[in-house]
Amino acid sequence: MNQQFRGVIPPVVTPLTADQKLDRESFTRSINRLIDAGVDGLFFLGSSGEVAFSTDERRREIIETAIAAVDHRVPVLVGCIDTETNRVIEHAKVAHELGADAIVATAPFYALGGLPEIERHFRLIHEAVDLPLFAYDIPVCVHVKLPGDLLIKLGLDGVLAGVKDSSNDDVAFRFLCDDNRKAGHPLTVLTGQEVVVDGAYMAGADGSVPGLGNVECTGYVRMWKAAEAGDWKTVREEQDKLAALMRIVTVTNGVSGFGAGVGAFKTAMALLGIFDTNQMPNPVAPLQGANVEAVDAVLRECGLTPVRTPEEVTLSTQ
Amino acid sequence: MNQQFRGVIPPVVTPLTADQKLDRESFTRSINRLIDAGVDGLFFLGSSGEVAFSTDERRREIIETAIAAVDHRVPVLVGCIDTETNRVIEHAKVAHELGADAIVATAPFYALGGLPEIERHFRLIHEAVDLPLFAYDIPVCVHVKLPGDLLIKLGLDGVLAGVKDSSNDDVAFRFLCDDNRKAGHPLTVLTGQEVVVDGAYMAGADGSVPGLGNVECTGYVRMWKAAEAGDWKTVREEQDKLAALMRIVTVTNGVSGFGAGVGAFKTAMALLGIFDTNQMPNPVAPLQGANVEAVDAVLRECGLTPVRTPEEVTLSTQ
Amino acid sequence: MNQQFRGVIPPVVTPLTADQKLDRESFTRSINRLIDAGVDGLFFLGSSGEVAFSTDERRREIIETAIAAVDHRVPVLVGCIDTETNRVIEHAKVAHELGADAIVATAPFYALGGLPEIERHFRLIHEAVDLPLFAYDIPVCVHVKLPGDLLIKLGLDGVLAGVKDSSNDDVAFRFLCDDNRKAGHPLTVLTGQEVVVDGAYMAGADGSVPGLGNVECTGYVRMWKAAEAGDWKTVREEQDKLAALMRIVTVTNGVSGFGAGVGAFKTAMALLGIFDTNQMPNPVAPLQGANVEAVDAVLRECGLTPVRTPEEVTLSTQ
Amino acid sequence: MNQQFRGVIPPVVTPLTADQKLDRESFTRSINRLIDAGVDGLFFLGSSGEVAFSTDERRREIIETAIAAVDHRVPVLVGCIDTETNRVIEHAKVAHELGADAIVATAPFYALGGLPEIERHFRLIHEAVDLPLFAYDIPVCVHVKLPGDLLIKLGLDGVLAGVKDSSNDDVAFRFLCDDNRKAGHPLTVLTGQEVVVDGAYMAGADGSVPGLGNVECTGYVRMWKAAEAGDWKTVREEQDKLAALMRIVTVTNGVSGFGAGVGAFKTAMALLGIFDTNQMPNPVAPLQGANVEAVDAVLRECGLTPVRTPEEVTLSTQ
Repeated sequence: MNQQFRGVIPPVVTPLTADQKLDRESFTRSINRLIDAGVDGLFFLGSSGEVAFSTDERRREIIETAIAAVDHRVPVLVGCIDTETNRVIEHAKVAHELGADAIVATAPFYALGGLPEIERHFRLIHEAVDLPLFAYDIPVCVHVKLPGDLLIKLGLDGVLAGVKDSSNDDVAFRFLCDDNRKAGHPLTVLTGQEVVVDGAYMAGADGSVPGLGNVECTGYVRMWKAAEAGDWKTVREEQDKLAALMRIVTVTNGVSGFGAGVGAFKTAMALLGIFDTNQMPNPVAPLQGANVEAVDAVLRECGLTPVRTPEEVTLSTQ
Repeated sequence: MNQQFRGVIPPVVTPLTADQKLDRESFTRSINRLIDAGVDGLFFLGSSGEVAFSTDERRREIIETAIAAVDHRVPVLVGCIDTETNRVIEHAKVAHELGADAIVATAPFYALGGLPEIERHFRLIHEAVDLPLFAYDIPVCVHVKLPGDLLIKLGLDGVLAGVKDSSNDDVAFRFLCDDNRKAGHPLTVLTGQEVVVDGAYMAGADGSVPGLGNVECTGYVRMWKAAEAGDWKTVREEQDKLAALMRIVTVTNGVSGFGAGVGAFKTAMALLGIFDTNQMPNPVAPLQGANVEAVDAVLRECGLTPVRTPEEVTLSTQ
Repeated sequence: MNQQFRGVIPPVVTPLTADQKLDRESFTRSINRLIDAGVDGLFFLGSSGEVAFSTDERRREIIETAIAAVDHRVPVLVGCIDTETNRVIEHAKVAHELGADAIVATAPFYALGGLPEIERHFRLIHEAVDLPLFAYDIPVCVHVKLPGDLLIKLGLDGVLAGVKDSSNDDVAFRFLCDDNRKAGHPLTVLTGQEVVVDGAYMAGADGSVPGLGNVECTGYVRMWKAAEAGDWKTVREEQDKLAALMRIVTVTNGVSGFGAGVGAFKTAMALLGIFDTNQMPNPVAPLQGANVEAVDAVLRECGLTPVRTPEEVTLSTQ
Repeated sequence: MNQQFRGVIPPVVTPLTADQKLDRESFTRSINRLIDAGVDGLFFLGSSGEVAFSTDERRREIIETAIAAVDHRVPVLVGCIDTETNRVIEHAKVAHELGADAIVATAPFYALGGLPEIERHFRLIHEAVDLPLFAYDIPVCVHVKLPGDLLIKLGLDGVLAGVKDSSNDDVAFRFLCDDNRKAGHPLTVLTGQEVVVDGAYMAGADGSVPGLGNVECTGYVRMWKAAEAGDWKTVREEQDKLAALMRIVTVTNGVSGFGAGVGAFKTAMALLGIFDTNQMPNPVAPLQGANVEAVDAVLRECGLTPVRTPEEVTLSTQ
C-alpha cells in the first residue's frame, strides 16, 4: 500500500478576488492554515476546487501558486478533470511539469461510453504520465459509477494508485474496501464524504477528502487520528460536531448545487477571515444577504468565531 | 420516543412451496429462529417479504400465519405497500383487523405526483387506521426520496411513528437522525441497510431492518447490543463478518434485482435447512445450479454449515 | 394484423362525485360522447383512467359501468395494472369475466428485475387469460423501457396482440413500427401521445390512445381518417389545433404530474358540462380557483364553449 | 427570424488518420460532398464532431481546415462545448477569430447548478463574443433539459439566435416551436434527430442537424425541400429510407454510445470511400471485423455501394 496518501487530504477551495481573479494571498493563507492543522496532503483542482470552471491558464496558475505555498510540506494531488482522455492527459502533463506528487482523474464524461472506454481511459493516462494516478469516482458529476472490480483490477495492474470516492454509495464503498484488503491493498481508498466519514473509517477507508475541511480541519485531523487508534467514541463525537457545521450548505435559500455547497464554504471562510471575498466563478453567483447571515448563524452555533460581519462579506464581491 | 420498535427488526422473507403456495411450516420455523436469536420485532410484507408479488389473499394469509406464529413474543409490523392511498388504506385495515402492532407504507408510486400528494397520503392513512405508522423510504422502488423535513413535521404532528430508511443515502440519514434528536425524537428511525449498519448506528439510528438477518440474525443482535453499550469495536467486527456474508447477493450470474437479492436469501435459507425450497414468486425464477453453489461457497467461507447440498436445493423447486 | 384495435382509442378518464364515488352518470355521458365522435375503441383503467388509485372494488365498478354503457358499440380494452404478475392476472380474470375485449398490462414494477422477468410476466398473463393482450410501455411510471426486439418476439409468439406506447421515445417508436412491418405486422402499435400523434402516424402507428381525446375527440378522429387517406396536410392542421388545446395541462401553477394532467382533463370536462365535478382521487387535490380559470381560458382560445363557470367548477368538489 | 441558418445543417464528423491525427484530406472530401449535396450550412465540433475528445489545438486545427474547405459556400457553425462559462468563452473567441458564422454552446455541465446559472451562462457568452449563439439542448450529455420558456426569453432578449434540439423530447419540441411562432419567431429551431425528422418538420422545425447526413445527405436535402413545399408524402418516404439506413448504429455488438453511433458513421464513410479510415479518438475503439461487416450489409440493403471491403476498413486503423 502506498502510505504517502493516507489520512486527511482536503480538496482545497480556490479563492477569487471580487473581479474573479485568483486571490493568491487568501489561497496561501488557507493552505498554511490547513497544513498547520495537520493535514496529510492537499488536493487541488478537485470539483470543489472549481476545476470545471477554470481555464487552462487559471489551472496552471492555481497549481503553481499551490505548489509554491505548500513547499513540500505535504504531498500535493492535482485534479486533471476533463471530458475525454487526450484532454485529461494534457492537464496531467502540466501537473507533472509543475511538480504535482499525484494526479486525480474521473471517468470520461459528456460523450456516452461504456466500461471498455473507462478502462482504456485510465490505462492511457497512466501510460502518458509517470505519476501516481487516483480514480475520482463522482457519479453526480460524471454520471457513471466506477465498478469495484474494475478499480481493483487497475490497482493490481499498477495503473491506479488509489480511489477518491465521492459516489455517496456506502455499500459499494465497504465492498471496495473489503476487496482491496483481500487483493493485498493495491489501492489507497479515500472517501470524499463529510458527514459520514465515521462510517467510511469503520468500513476501512485509508483517509478522507472532506470539502468542509476548508472551513474547519482540526476536527477531521482529530477524527482520523482517533480512527487510527481505534478510539471510535472520539471518531463519532468529532463527526457529530462536523455534521452540525455542515449545515452551512443546507440553510440557504434559492441556491443549489455548487453555488450552495462551495458557495457556503467560501462564505464561511470569508466570515472567518481566511478568504477576502466569497466570490464565485462564472456563471455562479456568490451567496449574499440573508444567505450569508444564515451561514454566519451556523458558524456561531458551532462555536466558531467570525471576524467579519455578514454585511462585509456580502459587500466583498461588489 | 416510541421504545416499542427500537432494535433489530428483520424484514421477514416469505417461503414458498415448489408450487408457489405459502409454506407455512418453513415460515413458522424461520419466525421462531428469529425470535430465538433475540430480535426486537418482525416486519412482514416488506419489499423482501415479497409484498409486491402477493395478491390480497396471499397477503392476508401471510399476516395471519405470522401473527399466530409470533404469538405476541415481539411486536409485529406489517407492510401495506400499494400504488396509491385508498389501496394502501385497504391493506392497513386488514392488517389492523388481523392484529398488527404497526403498519409500514411507502409514498405513492406509479402515478406521478409531488410532495403535497405524499403528505396528504400519509395523513389520510393515519386518519383511516389507528395504528403506529412508519414511512418506508425506498427510492429504488418508489422513485422518490422522502425529504427529512417532511418526515420530522409528520412525526411532530403525530402522523408518523417512525421511518424505515432504505434510501441508501447515508448523508440524508445522518441529517434525519440529527433533526429528529433536535425535535425531541418524535420518530423511531430504522435503517434498512445490511453492510453499513455500523455507520447508521454511529449516525444515531434507533435500530435496523436487515434483510440478511433472515440468514444470520445473531450477529445483528450482537451488533445492536454493542452499539447500545457504546462498544464500537464489537459493532465493527460484527458488521465486517456480516458484510462478508452479504456477498451471497453478488456472487451469482445472470440474475438481478429481487431475483438476485431475495433469491440469494432464500437459497441460503434452503441450504441451511430453514426453508424447504428456494422458490420465488412469479415472474422471478429461483436460483439454480452454479448460482446455488456460489451461495453455498460463501456460507461455508463465513463459517455457516449448510445441511443440504446445492443439488438438493436446485431440485427443491421442481 | 388485428384490425379490431386500430384507430382512435381514448384512455377514458374516470369521473368522481364530490365525495369520491364513481359518478356513473357523467361516466356514461362521456362514453356516449366519445362513441358519437367516432372512436374505434375505448380503453378503461389506463393511467389516466386512475387505475393506480382505484381499489379492486372500484375497478370492478368501473368495468361494469363501462361495458354496460358501451354496449358492444366499440371494442373495450381494460387496463390490468399492478405491481407483479399474480396481481395482474387477478385483474385480468375479472376483466375477462366482465366482458372486456382486450387487456392491457405494463411490465412489473416496484420490485427490481430484468428482461427475463418482463418476458415471463407477459407470457404468464397470456397463459392465464384468453384475451388479446397489449403491452403498455410507460417508463415514466414503470421505470423500464420495453425493448423493441422483445415486443416483436412476443408478438410473433402470439403472446402480445399489440403495444400501447407511452414511452415518449419517438426514435424507438419508429424502429418498432419498422420492425413490426418487416415481421409481418404481428403487433397493433398504438401511440399514447397527444401532441405529436402526426409524427407517430408518419412513423407507421396503427392508431392512438390520446388522453386529451376525453376533452375533444372529433379532432383525433379527423386526424386518423386523414392519416389513413394520406392527407398529411389535414393531419398536421388537426394536430396543431389539438396541441394548442393540450396547453390546459401546462397553464396551471403549483400542481404536477397526475394532478396537473388528468386534473386539467377533468376540469375541462367539468367546464364543458361532460363531468359534474373535477374531483380527483386520494391523495390528489382537484384544480381550483385560478387554475380552473386558466383551463377555462385555454378552452375559449381554442374555440370550445364552457357551459359552466370556473367558480361553479371550483365549488363542484365542495 | 434569422434565415441564414434554416434547412439542413449536418454536424460534420471528424476523420482521423490511423495514428489519430486529423485527416485533412478526408475532411475536405467529406465537406465538399456535403456542400455538393445541397446543405444549407455545416456544423463543426458538435458532439458527433468529437468536440469532447479534441484538445484545444485539435479544435483549432479542425476549425481552420473546415473554414478553408468551406470557403464561404455555406454558413459555418462551430461548437464551443466545455464544462463552464469561461472555458466556453475561450473556445468561442477562437471560433470568432478563425471566421465562424455562428457558435453553438450547451448548458454548463459537470458541476451541479440550476436555471439561474444556465441563464447567466448564455448571457455571458453572448456578451463576450459577437456572433449568433445557438443553445445546444442535449440532456443525454449535459444532464439537464433546457426549458422552452427560458429559450424563448433568451431569444426575445437577443441572447440566442436559435436552438439545436437533441433532447429527444418531441412533445417539448412541438411546444417550443409553437411558443417560438407566437413570440414572433425569435429563434431558429433545428432538430438534431435523424429518424423522426418528418415529425419535427410537421411540428414546425426550421431545419435539421442530422448526424446520419454525413453518410447520406441527399435524402435529407430532398426531405427538407419537400417539407418546405408541403409535400408530406415525399417527406415521409425520404424519412423511411433514412431510418432504414440509420440501422448502421444498431446492428453492431459489444459497443455503445459514441463508439456505436459515430463509430458506425465513420465506418460507413470509410466503406463508401469518403474517409480513409474509421479511426476513433481515445479512449474509443474503432469498429472492427464483424461489426464492420454488419454496417456494410446495411449500406448494401439501402442501395449504397461500398467501394472498399469490410476487411480493408478493419485494417485501415492498424
